[in-house]
Amino acid sequence: MYLMRIGAPGAEKPVARIDDETYVDLSDTVTDFDERFFGSGGLDRVRPLVAERMAAGRVARFAGERVGAPFARPHQILCIGLNYRDHAAESGMPVPDEPILFTKSPNTLIGPNDDVRVPRGSTKTDWEVELGIVIGRRTSYLESVEEARAAIAGYVVVNDVSERGFQLERGGQWAKGKSAETFNPAGPWLATADEIDDVLALDMWLDVNGMRRQTGNTKTMVFDPYFIVHYLSQFLVLEPGDLINTGTPPGVGMGLTPPTYLRPGDVMELGIRHLGVQRQRVVAPR
Amino acid sequence: MYLMRIGAPGAEKPVARIDDETYVDLSDTVTDFDERFFGSGGLDRVRPLVAERMAAGRVARFAGERVGAPFARPHQILCIGLNYRDHAAESGMPVPDEPILFTKSPNTLIGPNDDVRVPRGSTKTDWEVELGIVIGRRTSYLESVEEARAAIAGYVVVNDVSERGFQLERGGQWAKGKSAETFNPAGPWLATADEIDDVLALDMWLDVNGMRRQTGNTKTMVFDPYFIVHYLSQFLVLEPGDLINTGTPPGVGMGLTPPTYLRPGDVMELGIRHLGVQRQRVVAPR
Repeated sequence: MYLMRIGAPGAEKPVARIDDETYVDLSDTVTDFDERFFGSGGLDRVRPLVAERMAAGRVARFAGERVGAPFARPHQILCIGLNYRDHAAESGMPVPDEPILFTKSPNTLIGPNDDVRVPRGSTKTDWEVELGIVIGRRTSYLESVEEARAAIAGYVVVNDVSERGFQLERGGQWAKGKSAETFNPAGPWLATADEIDDVLALDMWLDVNGMRRQTGNTKTMVFDPYFIVHYLSQFLVLEPGDLINTGTPPGVGMGLTPPTYLRPGDVMELGIRHLGVQRQRVVAPR
Repeated sequence: MYLMRIGAPGAEKPVARIDDETYVDLSDTVTDFDERFFGSGGLDRVRPLVAERMAAGRVARFAGERVGAPFARPHQILCIGLNYRDHAAESGMPVPDEPILFTKSPNTLIGPNDDVRVPRGSTKTDWEVELGIVIGRRTSYLESVEEARAAIAGYVVVNDVSERGFQLERGGQWAKGKSAETFNPAGPWLATADEIDDVLALDMWLDVNGMRRQTGNTKTMVFDPYFIVHYLSQFLVLEPGDLINTGTPPGVGMGLTPPTYLRPGDVMELGIRHLGVQRQRVVAPR
């Protein structure tokens, strides 16, 4: 199942995507794809409904609606740092012994094709294509890495937009450069975990102004999604609908020679196999 | 005005405290002291109502109800590190040039007298009495420090419970040691900003098992609440109801010789003048 939210910001309609042209409307039965939905067995509830509506021909056609993030603002956005060996190298940092955790403000979440705004005073706004994990149930102290499978609702493309000066030169903790408004495009869809045969074999890429900048595959992750969910559950409680950004492959602007950052007018396009494609225009500070 | 939430966890009733014995019930008109309440002028709406009900004798008596955090789970909990000169010294770290930002998971929020649970695998669970700021409106790019006054709904006592091993020895970002369940007692009440004559002259203290461990006053803060709110608003968007923990004065367990940490059975008592007193039992891991 592929979940999407379409419509104006703050008034998105929850739907299940069938293909590029058609969807099943779920807005009569689902308030939103939010903490309550995931935490109350929402996925299991709508799955037969979607099949039933498809069988009955109750499908609608996309008509150019804006695409929102495929889930509502989460309780928290957790991020794993330096989780691809080559990206650690280009950042001049050692491959970590255990996952590096940092966070983003949840109100950074936007749709996959919404504008990304350069923050005021920024000279080092950077891109990061990442695999996002959406949590499916309240999760704490998992006993094994294997148990993490049941805690994952699905996967999504995210762009973990980062301001490197704010992140690294303004006081020592990374959250400061990760939380500006519009800094977390997500979508276009949430693929439920059963749709992804092998989450450790997904090609991913990112272009800036048509030039390929990042090329990677989840097979080169240092810590895989199950390890990450198990690990985090030892330190904090994951809520249904929480988002985990799992780190970026090589090719960020900070790692180029010379370093190259985003300017108003730039266009980012990025995607992960089976999870869709995003496209953001970069716009000037407010 | 002094806001409280009383009753069972997850079913707290919003009230306005008059004194130790009495309160005005607001549950017929306020769903909760949450993002929507603060963001829709809730404080201005209930202020005349509380006066009216007090004049009409519509007051109730506390009857031993549990006291919850005085506001609902916020969109984000932001924390300022090393914000008292003496605490930076005892931590062996330099006084920062600008505020150090880190975060806690919002679901760490509990009532002021609820149990604090030692995480599994913890040997270094520590205490931190702090002044908490609750944000009153959506706030971004404040033009001046002075403007921050209007963005603050009020103040609250918080205990920024911390696991020092998880924070400092497990991968470099502090969030990992700040986000275990029960790690953010708050309350007993939220004092609206107008009730606090001088937020930079508040005595604060914390005892463990009846022994005074922390003694401080907000006058020794490195960065004051207005500076902090203005500063953060340059990096991210603050939402109504967001909580900012503003740092702790000297006397944490990590700074003692030898370092001394919390064990099941310990009791923490802490308070800030005008903002009330908390009391937590420390309990064993789940």
